[in-house]
Amino acid sequence: MTDFEAIHEIKQLKYRYTRAFDTKDWDLFASCFAPDATGAYGGLDFDNVDDLLAYMRKNAREGMYSMHQVHHPEIEVDGDTATGTWYLQDKVMIPKLKFVMEGTALYADRYRRTDDGWKIAHTGYTRIWENSWSTEDVPSWQIK
Amino acid sequence: MTDFEAIHEIKQLKYRYTRAFDTKDWDLFASCFAPDATGAYGGLDFDNVDDLLAYMRKNAREGMYSMHQVHHPEIEVDGDTATGTWYLQDKVMIPKLKFVMEGTALYADRYRRTDDGWKIAHTGYTRIWENSWSTEDVPSWQIK
Amino acid sequence: MTDFEAIHEIKQLKYRYTRAFDTKDWDLFASCFAPDATGAYGGLDFDNVDDLLAYMRKNAREGMYSMHQVHHPEIEVDGDTATGTWYLQDKVMIPKLKFVMEGTALYADRYRRTDDGWKIAHTGYTRIWENSWSTEDVPSWQIK
Repeated sequence: MTDFEAIHEIKQLKYRYTRAFDTKDWDLFASCFAPDATGAYGGLDFDNVDDLLAYMRKNAREGMYSMHQVHHPEIEVDGDTATGTWYLQDKVMIPKLKFVMEGTALYADRYRRTDDGWKIAHTGYTRIWENSWSTEDVPSWQIK
Repeated sequence: MTDFEAIHEIKQLKYRYTRAFDTKDWDLFASCFAPDATGAYGGLDFDNVDDLLAYMRKNAREGMYSMHQVHHPEIEVDGDTATGTWYLQDKVMIPKLKFVMEGTALYADRYRRTDDGWKIAHTGYTRIWENSWSTEDVPSWQIK
Repeated sequence: MTDFEAIHEIKQLKYRYTRAFDTKDWDLFASCFAPDATGAYGGLDFDNVDDLLAYMRKNAREGMYSMHQVHHPEIEVDGDTATGTWYLQDKVMIPKLKFVMEGTALYADRYRRTDDGWKIAHTGYTRIWENSWSTEDVPSWQIK
């Protein structure tokens, strides 16, 4: 039978992770990872969680607007470990640089059950496509 | 244990609510609310459901195209009440005004179990960001 | 009681179907359909699955970038058959033709339980809206 309880908790974890990133809540973001977690974001690799967290804090600053929404969970639970495929849609906008990016990717995550609930053991995605354009071409474009 | 039956019904309610809005099915939309429901849409507040419904009917007319898709349900059930966090992506387009808007927000809802199923007791969201532009800058833009 | 196991399997099927399309994995895509499946994509009808598959393989080629994400599942299971409403957001981009399309639709699917798991018996959608524009108006637009 499908372990709905574990799948539910893993979904909540993943939702917390993207919500924390997009609202720049770095303590909540950090709490989603296992201490030895790794990351691989379409060519941007992290072999330890401290580097991953430091990178995100540094690059996702004031003036960067983002959206990371994850869909289509395909989660397989095997005891205290699990894998998850998700279909990401993301946007990143940096008005100061007139930069707008939009893309999709397939996440391939690994999760681990700990005394403190399910945590991300590895997160990574492969881009399907990514487009970008400059708001210089659309002078009326504005964001708040 | 997680009350999957209640969470399922609350999700169905929320999906019906957005589907009703985007297809302008106002009777279905009205049926989603408790009689004493309130709303708070990023600064646009309603202290009673009649005003909320009247506003929506008036403003979401022919000639306005919209999308309200809600993701990442984080629903907590406590007996006959529940809270729900959702991650909205919305678009509103009014060709006549050359207006295109796109945004994201976090919903913070409250639900109540009634004899007629779960209903929205309060719905409201806080914007993460919202952008807009004029199709005057993209003359080929068209919608049907 | 809600048949969560069947709903779960139908969701996994639908996610596989869109993932297969957007990654152009045509064997996986074909495996999602019952042998006698039919399709009705907003005016584009297929009365047999061979025609449907041939059409998709021919039109979704190299140089076409797509996103098909399905949300808000409203699935009703009745023994070995089921119906499903989904809220689609899709994008199609063909850089060579400077073509960008984005839209939403409501899927009305039928599913059937087989010895090989749940399969799509009929899939079809009704558009809510669809917009398009030419990247000629946004010269900086690029995709990879």
